[in-house]
Amino acid sequence: MTVIYNKIALIGLGLIAGSMAHATRRAGLATQIVGTARSAETRQIAKDINLCDQITETAAEAVKDADLVVLCVPIGAMEAVMKDIAPHLKPGAVVSDVGSVKRAVFEAVMPQLPENVTFIGGHPMAGTEHSGPRSGFAELFDDRWCLIVPSEGADADAVQRLTDFWGGLGSKCAQMEMDHHDLVCAVVSHTPHLIAYTMVGVADDLARVTESEVVNFSAAGFRDFTRIAASDPTMWRDVFLSNKDATLEILGRFTEELFALQRAIRQGDGDHLHDYFTRTRAIRRGIIEAGQDTDAPNFGRASAPKS
Amino acid sequence: MTVIYNKIALIGLGLIAGSMAHATRRAGLATQIVGTARSAETRQIAKDINLCDQITETAAEAVKDADLVVLCVPIGAMEAVMKDIAPHLKPGAVVSDVGSVKRAVFEAVMPQLPENVTFIGGHPMAGTEHSGPRSGFAELFDDRWCLIVPSEGADADAVQRLTDFWGGLGSKCAQMEMDHHDLVCAVVSHTPHLIAYTMVGVADDLARVTESEVVNFSAAGFRDFTRIAASDPTMWRDVFLSNKDATLEILGRFTEELFALQRAIRQGDGDHLHDYFTRTRAIRRGIIEAGQDTDAPNFGRASAPKS
Repeated sequence: MTVIYNKIALIGLGLIAGSMAHATRRAGLATQIVGTARSAETRQIAKDINLCDQITETAAEAVKDADLVVLCVPIGAMEAVMKDIAPHLKPGAVVSDVGSVKRAVFEAVMPQLPENVTFIGGHPMAGTEHSGPRSGFAELFDDRWCLIVPSEGADADAVQRLTDFWGGLGSKCAQMEMDHHDLVCAVVSHTPHLIAYTMVGVADDLARVTESEVVNFSAAGFRDFTRIAASDPTMWRDVFLSNKDATLEILGRFTEELFALQRAIRQGDGDHLHDYFTRTRAIRRGIIEAGQDTDAPNFGRASAPKS
Repeated sequence: MTVIYNKIALIGLGLIAGSMAHATRRAGLATQIVGTARSAETRQIAKDINLCDQITETAAEAVKDADLVVLCVPIGAMEAVMKDIAPHLKPGAVVSDVGSVKRAVFEAVMPQLPENVTFIGGHPMAGTEHSGPRSGFAELFDDRWCLIVPSEGADADAVQRLTDFWGGLGSKCAQMEMDHHDLVCAVVSHTPHLIAYTMVGVADDLARVTESEVVNFSAAGFRDFTRIAASDPTMWRDVFLSNKDATLEILGRFTEELFALQRAIRQGDGDHLHDYFTRTRAIRRGIIEAGQDTDAPNFGRASAPKS
């Protein structure tokens, strides 16, 4: 048990903040955890399940004397929250966030930041398809990456401390520059999500294929798309609106490639298809070797043990 | 142990045929299993691991006296196999297959079929990213769907018998008309595969994002795409070439929807995005409720038990 921050304040009490509270307690990383949420119902649930040491009605109260303040609200709400809390931040405090996009967060946060407070962006790459204060659990961040994106000139000790904190929550950490972060996430997360949403929407729309057919036969590839496409709509709306440039760039590349494969299918160009499919296999091997996934049948899901 | 066929012949000895051999033995569904493969190396491995009761050098030998012959070769190879075996098929025998597309298989098989032999298409919707005779295991088909596609006027008893056989291998069975089968599979399997291949190809191509970044941060959505995109290139080339019309139709719908979402992002139309993402969530709930997937964190993969 190593205390890294005396008092931490979690603004917004959804899956991520809830899991941070559990994991902070598990590792004894803070002396006091204060939480707040805009909705009275969420605050009441948090009290009922004893999620934090203290639940305040307003963000302004929550941040009082806090050494670390983490914005766990949708990106679209961050500017308003910063305006509320800025006058109440403790000198020397660190403000961080858990948003999936970084340039937009910096643009929302930095103009409001008092001079004696440091902002260091954080992006834990972990989640489930559930949301709300009851959905959090201590293991969410275990062995998952957390990307740390310091603001320009941020104190190196403060950056190290936040990195240690996320390490204590269970994460592996990597430091990244803001725009590079947004590009990497557009590739590994944002564009895949948009594509999955689209494919699921197409299936839903197709009158000639019944919903029960889609549901029953989903294991043939479609199921993985539905998992991705089941994530929180508000969060993902904000992700796409706030990582517009990188997402549109990667989407452009994607449609270019897709059209080339589509033409190969139309023209019966089997060699083009075969070459392309062979190349993509190598990336998968890299992911298995890096321990980021299992090669067990059916994804390691129930009932298909390898004999 | 109920014997359903006296002698069965498996033509081609990859993942599917290998798993069929294991599962047939597990349930005692046949008195004798004969197998053959084009490659001498594959035949030798099959002998070494005692995959079948007999391994023959040619498909013509394998089908002699067989009550059920299952074509487990890529769709592009089926016409040639049928030409080889047709003169040697036992009167009253049933020929089936395990191809992912049905119209193309019917077009390859039916013109070669002797009058006293029945063709009934089969499509077990199960697989892993591995291939070859060693990759098979008895549990592959457990609780997975097998689509049964009878030829016109096929004897009802013969259809029931093949259905019982797949039930004995562990599958749930559904009967479907040829073109409807190909459309359903284009939606739940073929188009999702093409999209996943494309996205993985784009990531691989992007010089500004390193391969280690893609590999490390893959859990954020991209990982599910790589799993889909790691499947056998030859099989998938044949799938797209032989289910051209349905795949191109669904791809057309897909790009139409994708462009609409892309425009919404560009124009900052958050309501359009939010509505779309909310609608797709419902399909996911259907899949969880139908028992086709788990809602456990991290997909039920290692090390994230819910507290």
